[in-house]
Amino acid sequence: MTNQTITHMAADLQAGRTDPVELAEGVFDRIKGHNDPALFIDLLKDRAMAEAEAAHLRWRAGIPASPVDGVPTAWKDLFDLKGRVTTAGSVVLKPNRPAATDAPIVAQAARAGMTSVGTVNMTEFAYSGIGLNPHYGTPRNIHAAKDAPRSPGGSSSGSGAVVAAGIVPMSMGSDTGGSVRIPASFNGVVGYKPSMGRYPMAGVFPLAQSLDTIGPLANSVADCVLIDAVLRGLSQPQIEPAEIAKLSFVIPDQVMFEDASPDVLRNFDATVTRLERSGARVSRISMPQLQDVLDLMAQHGFLAGAEALAIHQDRVNGPEAAQMDARVVRRVLQAASMSAVDLVILQQARTRLMADTAALIGDSVVLCPTTATTAMEIAPLEADQDVFFDHNGLTLRNTSLGNFLDWPGVSIPNGKDRNAMPTGLLLSAPHGRDRAVLAAALATEDIIRG
Amino acid sequence: MTNQTITHMAADLQAGRTDPVELAEGVFDRIKGHNDPALFIDLLKDRAMAEAEAAHLRWRAGIPASPVDGVPTAWKDLFDLKGRVTTAGSVVLKPNRPAATDAPIVAQAARAGMTSVGTVNMTEFAYSGIGLNPHYGTPRNIHAAKDAPRSPGGSSSGSGAVVAAGIVPMSMGSDTGGSVRIPASFNGVVGYKPSMGRYPMAGVFPLAQSLDTIGPLANSVADCVLIDAVLRGLSQPQIEPAEIAKLSFVIPDQVMFEDASPDVLRNFDATVTRLERSGARVSRISMPQLQDVLDLMAQHGFLAGAEALAIHQDRVNGPEAAQMDARVVRRVLQAASMSAVDLVILQQARTRLMADTAALIGDSVVLCPTTATTAMEIAPLEADQDVFFDHNGLTLRNTSLGNFLDWPGVSIPNGKDRNAMPTGLLLSAPHGRDRAVLAAALATEDIIRG
Repeated sequence: MTNQTITHMAADLQAGRTDPVELAEGVFDRIKGHNDPALFIDLLKDRAMAEAEAAHLRWRAGIPASPVDGVPTAWKDLFDLKGRVTTAGSVVLKPNRPAATDAPIVAQAARAGMTSVGTVNMTEFAYSGIGLNPHYGTPRNIHAAKDAPRSPGGSSSGSGAVVAAGIVPMSMGSDTGGSVRIPASFNGVVGYKPSMGRYPMAGVFPLAQSLDTIGPLANSVADCVLIDAVLRGLSQPQIEPAEIAKLSFVIPDQVMFEDASPDVLRNFDATVTRLERSGARVSRISMPQLQDVLDLMAQHGFLAGAEALAIHQDRVNGPEAAQMDARVVRRVLQAASMSAVDLVILQQARTRLMADTAALIGDSVVLCPTTATTAMEIAPLEADQDVFFDHNGLTLRNTSLGNFLDWPGVSIPNGKDRNAMPTGLLLSAPHGRDRAVLAAALATEDIIRG
Repeated sequence: MTNQTITHMAADLQAGRTDPVELAEGVFDRIKGHNDPALFIDLLKDRAMAEAEAAHLRWRAGIPASPVDGVPTAWKDLFDLKGRVTTAGSVVLKPNRPAATDAPIVAQAARAGMTSVGTVNMTEFAYSGIGLNPHYGTPRNIHAAKDAPRSPGGSSSGSGAVVAAGIVPMSMGSDTGGSVRIPASFNGVVGYKPSMGRYPMAGVFPLAQSLDTIGPLANSVADCVLIDAVLRGLSQPQIEPAEIAKLSFVIPDQVMFEDASPDVLRNFDATVTRLERSGARVSRISMPQLQDVLDLMAQHGFLAGAEALAIHQDRVNGPEAAQMDARVVRRVLQAASMSAVDLVILQQARTRLMADTAALIGDSVVLCPTTATTAMEIAPLEADQDVFFDHNGLTLRNTSLGNFLDWPGVSIPNGKDRNAMPTGLLLSAPHGRDRAVLAAALATEDIIRG
């Protein structure tokens, strides 16, 4: 099955070959057919059908709200959608009042005519990269054998799974340590994590405000570019594929390849070879700052940990902890030993290392595997917290370096491993160079897909 | 004695009525005459005379580097000056290597032709508002009786004293919690604390990087405006006095007046009356965010404390502590109990409260007394650390609210108390509104002096 892209849907809508109502109905049919009770937290059929009907009328009148008017989408369940309680993948938020308004990013998608069909599952409070959820179940990774289910990646587990299953062509996730790029990689779809500040964060349940970003998971880089334009209020995307002969890639020779699986390394090398043969310049460079970041975290703790604890300290130290995922409680509590001085040191080092790596990378784009391994079987992860924590740490390593350094990044599927599980190629660039990384990703995707 | 202003010196230089060499020689004569061994940490006569000679040649050739070419200045001893060790008011830094280059702000002043006559005393590591220094002595407050010396204010104690004594017309200080505005108030001179980021901070020994600013102490607001232009590379100041009838002032009815001395209150009210009579609009408003800041600090500690501890933790926990001011060691160590979560809460509240107060203040300028009391006698402060800490806390209260909220501020002398000690009026505005606060201060100064 080839999933329908937003770009394709937009062309069909434009040509009158399909209709928003038909598209929305198709979604709900596919949800039934897919039959994964852990995928959606809420279906919003009334909202979606009303939005689809309005989009239908606009297309019929020749005044679509945008090129994606009537394209269906699903939201990670940490975006406020008017009239419902945002769960953030937890049960402890259920007593909260329903959201009074859509989050600004949801409202912007709605203004562009997108139909919101529901909210999808996630790691509780977005705090792990694997995607297990004991409250709502763990979304199925469609690439895994049914009798040996594998992780969908997280924390935007449902966003990765719902796009991979072809149910909707796009789902917004959030990414604080890799939570867009990891499920993109594990599910074989594209994920785009922007620089901080590119989209409004109001009405998005936070994990750690100095790192939180939101971004789309979709079937192609072109779709991410189109959605980026729509979400920023532009009528058309303004980012073209980079000229491959003018592209310069750098591969850091530290950190990113440690403990990587042979198949991940093989697919990475094959992609690099194709890029080089297509005329791109690829250099392996020393980037000792990456090890510096890991050393800082080992010595002083995690920025995300301190900020997550600030949000959840009453929860994890009170009776609600018993209703939470024990792995999330453990991770949040790890920051309890961090001092204010630890945090100051991390914050000041972050500023310095962002500048140092930006100077080192310049106009180049950084290449690495999105994750060191592919999606692991769920059973051993659920059986042993230490196995879970080790795998979680390794899974988050490459992407979380990008969050610490505020690099925009795009994960593109670049093959499968011996178990038919997808691998991902991560393109990154220094803070603010979203346009460059998206342009490079457009060109790279063409070459990977050949 | 009326001290000569920069504006006056610049006019004399322009008209050929004085000469940079004469100005520099005058400084060293006055230093001798003033005879305060605690005022300067280093005299830089060779540098100053060479700079003065070069300025002299430029004026003679009709090509002055700036309107202040040849105007003498003195630097708080936390600015790097090439070839000497920056002490930051401490003795523990003395073994450091001499600075390889001037701090960028020093270099900019030098490019404009200013002559650097020396470095002046300060509170050790800039960490208190009173100005006592057990290593280099405490600069004399010229307004106090010789047999009952009073605090010069701090931490830019020497900068306040050297300008008040008429030795140089301007001295750059630094302000993390009030360290420009407090000595300005205590010494009866003008002090300007900019919004963060207005001047480069490289080569300035830090106290707490998320709060540190540098700014001039001088004899008039007009001089601060002129120096601001010079330090920003402009050839002429571009800020004019605000039209008084169009000025709107707000006076917060919380916090700022608690425990203020009767004379401070009387002078404040008298100034407000004059402003109103001159046509300015003055409103007393509720600003509960000020109490929120104090409550946050009481519960979670001080931003400055955590950042200062990050800088000095090895020092205050090691043998160097014995060579430090015990009051500074105690203050630095207070942050040892702060957790990372405390800091996250403070930082996030800061962002929120900056926005809330900016919205509340709008285009108005905030008025309050710079300090709740005037300069206190030194003897009881030196006799009892608790007396010192209480007085230090009260002295810093009003100004440090401005640092937390990143308000630019100007302190203007607005009278004396019953002991002939100066009081200060503080004008502040939301972050980034330096132009507005300087324009209002120009107009206000005219009215106070009027």
